[in-house]
Amino acid sequence: MIAKEENEKLIIEKLMGIEDFHELAVRVDDTDLMSIVHANKYLNYFDDGFISFTSKMGKNCGVLYKQGIVFPVRKIEVEYINSATFGDNILIHTRVINVGNTSMTLAMDCYKNTKSKDTLLVKGIIVRLIMDLKENKLIRITDFFRDII
Amino acid sequence: MIAKEENEKLIIEKLMGIEDFHELAVRVDDTDLMSIVHANKYLNYFDDGFISFTSKMGKNCGVLYKQGIVFPVRKIEVEYINSATFGDNILIHTRVINVGNTSMTLAMDCYKNTKSKDTLLVKGIIVRLIMDLKENKLIRITDFFRDII
Amino acid sequence: MIAKEENEKLIIEKLMGIEDFHELAVRVDDTDLMSIVHANKYLNYFDDGFISFTSKMGKNCGVLYKQGIVFPVRKIEVEYINSATFGDNILIHTRVINVGNTSMTLAMDCYKNTKSKDTLLVKGIIVRLIMDLKENKLIRITDFFRDII
Amino acid sequence: MIAKEENEKLIIEKLMGIEDFHELAVRVDDTDLMSIVHANKYLNYFDDGFISFTSKMGKNCGVLYKQGIVFPVRKIEVEYINSATFGDNILIHTRVINVGNTSMTLAMDCYKNTKSKDTLLVKGIIVRLIMDLKENKLIRITDFFRDII
Repeated sequence: MIAKEENEKLIIEKLMGIEDFHELAVRVDDTDLMSIVHANKYLNYFDDGFISFTSKMGKNCGVLYKQGIVFPVRKIEVEYINSATFGDNILIHTRVINVGNTSMTLAMDCYKNTKSKDTLLVKGIIVRLIMDLKENKLIRITDFFRDII
Repeated sequence: MIAKEENEKLIIEKLMGIEDFHELAVRVDDTDLMSIVHANKYLNYFDDGFISFTSKMGKNCGVLYKQGIVFPVRKIEVEYINSATFGDNILIHTRVINVGNTSMTLAMDCYKNTKSKDTLLVKGIIVRLIMDLKENKLIRITDFFRDII
Repeated sequence: MIAKEENEKLIIEKLMGIEDFHELAVRVDDTDLMSIVHANKYLNYFDDGFISFTSKMGKNCGVLYKQGIVFPVRKIEVEYINSATFGDNILIHTRVINVGNTSMTLAMDCYKNTKSKDTLLVKGIIVRLIMDLKENKLIRITDFFRDII
Repeated sequence: MIAKEENEKLIIEKLMGIEDFHELAVRVDDTDLMSIVHANKYLNYFDDGFISFTSKMGKNCGVLYKQGIVFPVRKIEVEYINSATFGDNILIHTRVINVGNTSMTLAMDCYKNTKSKDTLLVKGIIVRLIMDLKENKLIRITDFFRDII
């Protein structure tokens, strides 16, 4: 029992040690009439960042989907600080900041990525679950990551 | 045999007699950095127009989806003439212009809808199939509409 | 001075008394591979709800945009409770729950709208500013609404 | 006069000799309830492919936008052949197939990119103009590319 708890602690520790940086170019379609990236579009960037993050964990969520594993979003918090436009590159910094029984909380910050300086654009907190579509039930976070990390 | 052919002709004639007008408001998110509706977004408007069109036929495609019937897009042609922006209303005029064995061709024109005058924005031609997801096969167009129109 | 404060209180009170209900149909494009509306798309629904809300205030934000007034998003919090799919109608219930100097906080709940019962899908909290593009500065919330409501 | 014509021919020849390959990963948000990439989303992929294409020409269209140069879409034709889903990579093959006075026609094919074999998903033909936003007028295609390629 104690061994299991110790093991869980270790998994959570490892999970919270992973961080990922993902870069993408703003699409024209991401901008709106204010000539800046529309607020809603950062959620798509977070999706991209999450794919990149899962690749870093050793299990790309595209591959996982084909095995019936998905990561439903339970909660999102986004704070908008600065704006980007077409021609800018976005850098997404992702790490796990909390692990519950069946949910994990990711912090995802978007930066405007330039040679000289990165400007913080948006701070996001996303709570995701892990679900087995074949059995239609939630997977315990530490169970899922036991054999992966 | 002749009776069946006659019957098919009648169905096609009726189908090509239906026309639908659907109105919607431009979303901020539909616009891009040129302060106009982004070219790609008219395809979403066409989707809205098609939902409205199927409702007019007596079978809303949302209800049909829940019965396993979908309308995959086979081909699209779009010509851009004028532009719209946030604050504008879009009027979509839809009618069937050709009926093949397993495909139907819709003409979908988008207008900027104002009190005094409608301005043609975009002309679309969309070829759609009708598919039964449960049997994973295409449905003959006239068979599908036999009992509906 | 006191009169001005009293007046501000009254504006805020009135503003917080407005509520809006807006209905829309789920687009196929709103759904994802789980056959449900993708989490990100609720932000588009919130945009639609906000347009409807501003219309109710007597100043449609589409018209306001053409006068150089926009409503940038400062913060978003979304909680996902149930899911909807194509064929469903979404009802968005909007009201102002807080008014700051230059920001207002809206609560926007999305329901699956059926004849018998409404199911809560998503709860959103959105903080928006009001900005004058011509002068490139924020407008005090009570100043903006003084002559409107 | 003849020299100019010769020169134009050369520019057009060069332009039609450029080809670009751009790869991207399907986003969950790109898929719809049929668990495949929604038809409309290929237009976003074409946008990505065009950014990549302009980079290859030596003038990234993100940088050009900041100089007031944009590439409005005049016409689109898309044919859908096969489908892709989340977990797939898309390869976009772009080249110029026709050059008019103020328009250029691009062929953009999307492939599902796997190690063993590429499967053709979608064939697109896109006609784009080149516009100077500051002067609000179209630029002659050969004039634009004279100093670039």
